[in-house]
This record gives sequence, structure tokens and C-alpha cells, in this order.
Amino acid sequence: MVDYEKIILAHGSGGKVMHSFLKDTLRAYLPIDRFYDSAILKIPSGDVAFTTDSFVVSPLFFPGGDIGSLAVYGTVNDLTMVGSEPRFISLSLIIEEGFPINDLNRILNSIREASKTAGVQVVTGDTKVVQKGKGDGIFINTAGIGVFSKEKMFTPDRIKPGDVIILSGSIGNHGMAVMAERNGLSFEPPVLSDTRPLNKLLEEVIEFSDSIHALRDPTRGGLATTLKEFALETNLCIEIDESNIPIKQQVRGACEILGLDPLYVANEGIFVAFVDEDMSKSVLERLRRHPYGKEASIIGKVKKSPGGMVLLNTEFGGTRMLDMLTGDQLPRIC
Amino acid sequence: MVDYEKIILAHGSGGKVMHSFLKDTLRAYLPIDRFYDSAILKIPSGDVAFTTDSFVVSPLFFPGGDIGSLAVYGTVNDLTMVGSEPRFISLSLIIEEGFPINDLNRILNSIREASKTAGVQVVTGDTKVVQKGKGDGIFINTAGIGVFSKEKMFTPDRIKPGDVIILSGSIGNHGMAVMAERNGLSFEPPVLSDTRPLNKLLEEVIEFSDSIHALRDPTRGGLATTLKEFALETNLCIEIDESNIPIKQQVRGACEILGLDPLYVANEGIFVAFVDEDMSKSVLERLRRHPYGKEASIIGKVKKSPGGMVLLNTEFGGTRMLDMLTGDQLPRIC
Repeated sequence: MVDYEKIILAHGSGGKVMHSFLKDTLRAYLPIDRFYDSAILKIPSGDVAFTTDSFVVSPLFFPGGDIGSLAVYGTVNDLTMVGSEPRFISLSLIIEEGFPINDLNRILNSIREASKTAGVQVVTGDTKVVQKGKGDGIFINTAGIGVFSKEKMFTPDRIKPGDVIILSGSIGNHGMAVMAERNGLSFEPPVLSDTRPLNKLLEEVIEFSDSIHALRDPTRGGLATTLKEFALETNLCIEIDESNIPIKQQVRGACEILGLDPLYVANEGIFVAFVDEDMSKSVLERLRRHPYGKEASIIGKVKKSPGGMVLLNTEFGGTRMLDMLTGDQLPRIC
Repeated sequence: MVDYEKIILAHGSGGKVMHSFLKDTLRAYLPIDRFYDSAILKIPSGDVAFTTDSFVVSPLFFPGGDIGSLAVYGTVNDLTMVGSEPRFISLSLIIEEGFPINDLNRILNSIREASKTAGVQVVTGDTKVVQKGKGDGIFINTAGIGVFSKEKMFTPDRIKPGDVIILSGSIGNHGMAVMAERNGLSFEPPVLSDTRPLNKLLEEVIEFSDSIHALRDPTRGGLATTLKEFALETNLCIEIDESNIPIKQQVRGACEILGLDPLYVANEGIFVAFVDEDMSKSVLERLRRHPYGKEASIIGKVKKSPGGMVLLNTEFGGTRMLDMLTGDQLPRIC
């Protein structure tokens, strides 16, 4: 068997080189038994959550994560946000010819570790190779299946006026970690991506699921865009207080240097929860016990009007209307 | 609202431009109700099939199909080959900055039509945009979920000596259609890709499912590679007759011009079935009644030894051992 140092077109050919890549390289990291056309899964009866995400983050490795862990947790988090328990993921690679096998192994290892941490299984996959100059290192798609073991489906139509808005952690960490790496900036302490599996944090408060009305992770577009989505979907008003939004000092500094508003910077390990007011303190307290929720804060509440609006009470005593992100301040952040 | 003619980075930003793209453009083609983090599906209890495929075919449009129909049918066929009924697919786009919106619309239309034809529903998706020069027009990932309504799971361990091998159609059409388009060749009659949904053909013979032991669609790597996979997985011998393998005259001609062996050329609309000898004539007859199965033929049978081997009885009376595809004669064929 030839030991390749770089990916060649034949790794995506369907032939001999691809088969030995699957059997020797991929299987060393991922416990895929057999390479049939589809995986066959045992799923308990009931509803199933299904999602997909492609990851094109650049650079591939950044402080606090890499494209591999991001691809696993991104899909795990999408499954978690509707209230399902992530179980199975698919893994599809589009690799550029010439990509170093060492980097691929590092990414596969990261996928393995992330799958273990999140408690999901990679059950099916695909590998394609494109010519040099027709891709950018590696793009990864993961799709995922989650199951609902209890009645706890979170959807925006459950949100009502009076709901308290809890943010599970500080904002801007992922986006600024990737931007710092991309621009060769370093901060002290370093800015680390918050890439992590939110199903583990949600488990902490799942007993309060009746009081948790909706959840969403503010990824691309940041916190402001996510809140605006909710305001539009519910036709309610979301009012938040700037001084209650947790943000690390070094992230604030990085945003200032790069001229970015942290409210629009991508996150990969926090969620916004709309919670019944009565239970909001208990949910907050419990979130703070978990390592992923130590910075959780109540950032605002839902009001009846003006519908479709997000109002930010600024630190200086004014009020600012927040819209969705316009343009693209941070391309290829995930 | 701005009407864009080309994709810009902001189409993948998560912000305003992406939201209006999803609501106005994408929804015009695909009936996705709401853009939550995951779709929530009703699935009957029992086993579920799950698969994924990324499509990087170049060129994007070719005689008989395009990347859109290919992305739908490719995943539909993978779900069909294990015996499941394809139900739901996800759609993830990685688009290069500057990609014409008209081409995107044409592809989305093709996805819509293909989904209708195959009887599957696009239920969740994702859109990413990469800078000009970091992709190649568009790459599409589809993942899919199939359900098993009857006991009809096809796996290679059901194959036994004496099984008859049926090929559902002629070989080489997809690969040669793409290659002809790529190289500016034209044939009379034209070579058309066989991109099509095999679940519709399988329905024709599903009453014989007890006698159908295993199925696979010979895509990348072609018929020879697929048969070799089966030989290795079962440790049985597969013997086929060259003169019984259907191949269109113009495909044979195109292969000769380009110096390719049709046994290794990709297909997207045929399957190889391992069928109990007693029922093989009935299965063949029924397949031939369907438009997708008119050229179906018995091409060989399974023998006990030599295990792991594929033997081709040539038209000239000799015997040739077939191995998997080596190298990559046709990069980016799907």
C-alpha cells in the first residue's frame, strides 16, 4: 500500500485508493463498520429532528477549535435547539487536491473526540476531491438526526410577552478567535472560540423544559440577528439591556481593534433561551453550575409591542433599534 | 429589496441578504415552511436509513441532467439500495462568490422537479458562500432519510452461490455524457446521462424482495469496482459475461475515442441486483416493463470460488480478472 502525504484526485475516485483511504485512514478514527450505500439506524418511534450544515471556516485551525470539532458541534447544537437529543451524524468531505494528510488526520481526530464529547455517532459519510485551486483545503458537511425522548419541543410560537431572555454565555468568542487567527493578532489572555456541544448544557436544565419556550444558538449574524429573527417570527418586541450582556474584556478589545460590533459576531457555544418568568431564576442558577454556563445572564425580556422590534437599552442610557446583520463583516466564520 | 444577479459573500452571512435569499429565492422553489435550526419529521417506528453525498460534478449542466437532479437522485438511490423508501432530504449549498443567480435558479428548479419525481421532500438546508477562486461554481450536499415499510433490507451477507446477477440498464451513460460535455464532444445520437431515481424502478419488483438479496448502484468506479466490492465483502466469486453487458453504441464509441474502459465509467441510474436463481427470470421481465429497466440483462452469476474475485468472460473467449478502478480516470464525475 502506498503511503500518501497529500490528497490526490484518486482519493475521491471511488476506486482502489479511495477504498484503502476509507478502510485504513478514516476507519482508524471513526468506527464505521461497513461502507454500504446507507447506514441503517434503530430509532425510537416518534418525532425525529433532521438538520444539515456545511463548514467552510478559514483558517481551518483556530484557538479553541478547528473545522472538525466545529462541524460536529454545529450540527449537534442545531439538533439541540429544537429540543431533540442528537444521536447520529453524517460526515461528507470535499477536499482540495494537495491537502496534507497530516492535517486531515488532525481534523479526523478532532471529529472523533468531539463526537465522543457530544455523545453522537458518525454513521455514514462521503469523500470527494476537487482539483487544486477549485476548493480551499477542506469543506465539511455534517447532517444530523436527533430523537425526542420527552415532550420538549422548543419552537418560537411558545414565546409570550413577559418571557425572560437568558443568554447562556459571553458573546463574540468564536468570531473573534477566528478573526484573530486570520489576521495574525494575539491577545493576552487569548481569545478562544466557544465551539462546544450545547446538548450537554441543556441537560442541566431539562427538568425545566416546560418553562423553556424557545432556544436558538446565535451563530452567523450574532446575537442581534438571532433576536431580530425571533422578534419577526413572533411579532413581539424583544428588549435587552446592553450592560447585562456578558462579553469578555479581550473580545471587546479585539472588536474595537477590528471595528466590529460584538452583537453581530458569530458564536458557536451559547444559546438564547426564552423562559417563563417564574422559573427564570432557577434556570439561570442551574445553567451557571455547568462549565459551559458559568457566564449565563438574564439579558432582557419579551414585550407585546412594538411587534417585530429588538430594542437595546445602551450603557449610556439611550435606546437603539437592532436590525439583522447587513453585508458580511466576517465571511467564512463557520 | 435589491435584486442580485450574482451571489455575493453576504448571501452566506446569516444576515439580511441571506434571509431574503432564503425567503424569496429558495422558497420560490422549495416548500420549506420555517427556517428553524432543525426540521421535525414524523417517522414511522422501526429502522431508518441515513446517507450523505456531496456533489462536485463539473460541468454543472450536462446532457440528461445537472448537479441539481444528480444531488437529489444520488441520495435517493443510496437510500433505495439498502431497501428503504426515500422520504426526506437535506440540501446544503457551497456557492462561489460571483456565481450567476440565473444558474442557481436553474439548479433549484431542477432540484424541485427531481424531488417531485422521486417523491422526496427537501426539509432542511444550509447556504455558505466562499470567495471567488476558493470554490468552483457550486458544490451541493444532500443527506437523506429513508424508512422501511416492509421487511426488505438488502445487504451483501444475503448473497449466496448460484445467485444470478441482473444489471438494470446499460453502462457508462452518465460518465460519458459528462466527459463529452467537458471536452466539447458531441455524438449522434447524443450520449445522455442516466441520472434518475431508482426507487421508482425498484417499486416494479418489490413483490420479489425476498428473492432480491443485495442491490448497489455502480456510480464512481463503475460496474467493475462495484462487483469487486461485492466479491470482497462476500468472499465469493462473481463471474460475468462481457457479451451480456448492455452498452449503447455511442457510449462504446465515446469510450474508444477517450481511451476509457466502460466497465469503470460512472453510472447514476442503474443497479446491480443479486437475485435468487428461481425468481431471476420474473424479476428481469418485470424490470424490462419499466422505462428505466428496458435494457435490463442477466450478466452473470455468483460462484463459490475463487473467493474475492471478479471474472469477466470476454467477447473473444478469454477470461479477464477485474479489479477496482486504479487512479482516477474521470475526476469530478458526480
